[in-house]
Amino acid sequence: MYREAIKVLDCTIRDGGLINDHYFEDSFVKAVYRAIAASGVDYMEIGYKASKELLAPTKFGKWKFCDENEIKKIIDGVENRPKLSVMCDIGRVEKSDIPPKKDSVIDMIRVATYVKEVDKAIDLVNDFVDKGYETTVNIMAVSKAQDNELDEALDQLERESRTGVVYIVDSFGYYYQEHITYLAAKFKKYLKTKELGIHMHNNQQLGFSNTIQGIIEGCNYLDATIYGIGRGAGNCPMELLIGFLKNPKFDIRPILEVISKEFLPLLKTMEWGYIIPYAITGMLNEHPRSAIAVRSTPDKDNYVKFLNSLSAVEVD
Amino acid sequence: MYREAIKVLDCTIRDGGLINDHYFEDSFVKAVYRAIAASGVDYMEIGYKASKELLAPTKFGKWKFCDENEIKKIIDGVENRPKLSVMCDIGRVEKSDIPPKKDSVIDMIRVATYVKEVDKAIDLVNDFVDKGYETTVNIMAVSKAQDNELDEALDQLERESRTGVVYIVDSFGYYYQEHITYLAAKFKKYLKTKELGIHMHNNQQLGFSNTIQGIIEGCNYLDATIYGIGRGAGNCPMELLIGFLKNPKFDIRPILEVISKEFLPLLKTMEWGYIIPYAITGMLNEHPRSAIAVRSTPDKDNYVKFLNSLSAVEVD
Repeated sequence: MYREAIKVLDCTIRDGGLINDHYFEDSFVKAVYRAIAASGVDYMEIGYKASKELLAPTKFGKWKFCDENEIKKIIDGVENRPKLSVMCDIGRVEKSDIPPKKDSVIDMIRVATYVKEVDKAIDLVNDFVDKGYETTVNIMAVSKAQDNELDEALDQLERESRTGVVYIVDSFGYYYQEHITYLAAKFKKYLKTKELGIHMHNNQQLGFSNTIQGIIEGCNYLDATIYGIGRGAGNCPMELLIGFLKNPKFDIRPILEVISKEFLPLLKTMEWGYIIPYAITGMLNEHPRSAIAVRSTPDKDNYVKFLNSLSAVEVD
Repeated sequence: MYREAIKVLDCTIRDGGLINDHYFEDSFVKAVYRAIAASGVDYMEIGYKASKELLAPTKFGKWKFCDENEIKKIIDGVENRPKLSVMCDIGRVEKSDIPPKKDSVIDMIRVATYVKEVDKAIDLVNDFVDKGYETTVNIMAVSKAQDNELDEALDQLERESRTGVVYIVDSFGYYYQEHITYLAAKFKKYLKTKELGIHMHNNQQLGFSNTIQGIIEGCNYLDATIYGIGRGAGNCPMELLIGFLKNPKFDIRPILEVISKEFLPLLKTMEWGYIIPYAITGMLNEHPRSAIAVRSTPDKDNYVKFLNSLSAVEVD
């Protein structure tokens, strides 16, 4: 699959940071940055921009805040630099946390929003556009949204926001390829002047195939993480995506090398990947928090008990 | 996805046996059989039928031969029995190894063939049909076949064989959903009187999504294995497939339970799943034998070296 307009965005450190509250060693972040740079991947998302007034800096590692001087320590001296991205969550950042682009090493800011908060997202993203950044709006938990509310949010994003890209996000790892076809058609119907992006979770081993389906349906911004790292089941694996894309600018070898050297050791201290409780929350279109919780209990591998605990919730 | 015509076939013991030369303990095979029976899955493939004249019984476990009395030890006393299947490889079985159906507990015999051996496969499968069995023909390594030779083989299968089902097999884990759409259309074009089946390998985490694509394209016989067990990267995971299919006859709980009790311990002594050398052979459309070999060397996790070793092969 070769399409020149395709951009690949690595969110290894940002999404992986959801496992460990963003406490990665600088040496690890540097190894990832160097691998991404050498692989020809277009963007690397290095963490979140969050307000230290709203979130206590003592409770999170530095990649929850992404201070400019911390980023510079990582990127200095590296050739073939990818563009740098950070993510902002609605309600966890102030406009004043974001300097004008000319004073920042960051290239792109991505605003993560629920459908119901799209007004706030539009206000925020337009501020970032005005400051000179590339931007995206990532609509989370679409699989829980009411269809008519999603329609309205997409219509608003087209008319009121100045972002260039809107992402389909499968927060719960619920989708398979027919959902992606349906959603991409809906997004394209409203977002006539925007590019589409796709960010898939891997609960049911569908992260990669859903990203392929996104490509087929015209998404040009593709998220992936090295060795699929990410909260819970993780994400579309970068090595598979690079192996699939035929653009000669990409080189899979630096990704393979950093997996061998950094990710196999990391898996001994951090958990992500194909793990049955995450598969179950994906099947049920549920937030992975219950699965995350059970994995730190003695019942971590009692899958029937876990499924029964979710099925037992009464709905009036 | 609900379609009454869909049949699910578990090949946990048969395909998993390729990892350990078919040396499973009876207690494990019984646990799998009981789980499959309780889950409502339609067929269980318990191993191969091979000739003890052609293959030395000292070199393989009992599930390479599937003697009737060994099968009976497993299935006796179990309720809600699934149909039983065995597989035959061309050149490793004689017609005389297969008794008439009335003298066997086996319900279905599946003939695995390469495109080039389709004449032999037709001869064999027709004998099994005449003996009273359900049958399938599974065309292996389609991704390496010449298109015109595949066309001819499919045409022959339609005209000359009396099998009811022909399988698309992704032996190398190379395919993604567009390949499945292409192949299913081709198979349907020739096989107007046969059902289609799909057997996918999981090298690139596409086993489940390709099986879903098979369903979308009209395949009614679906192969899967518990926890995705199988040689190399393994197969479409049964628990995901059962979670996806909406037919109320299926129950995921017995599958989850046997994973907790039998498969997690087994993973400490047998290797399968998402492992980079298998992903690489899948991307390159290569047999996994080179990846199997490297996994028993000190270089098992030197992925760049492994990729380079494959890429270095000169082709005249």
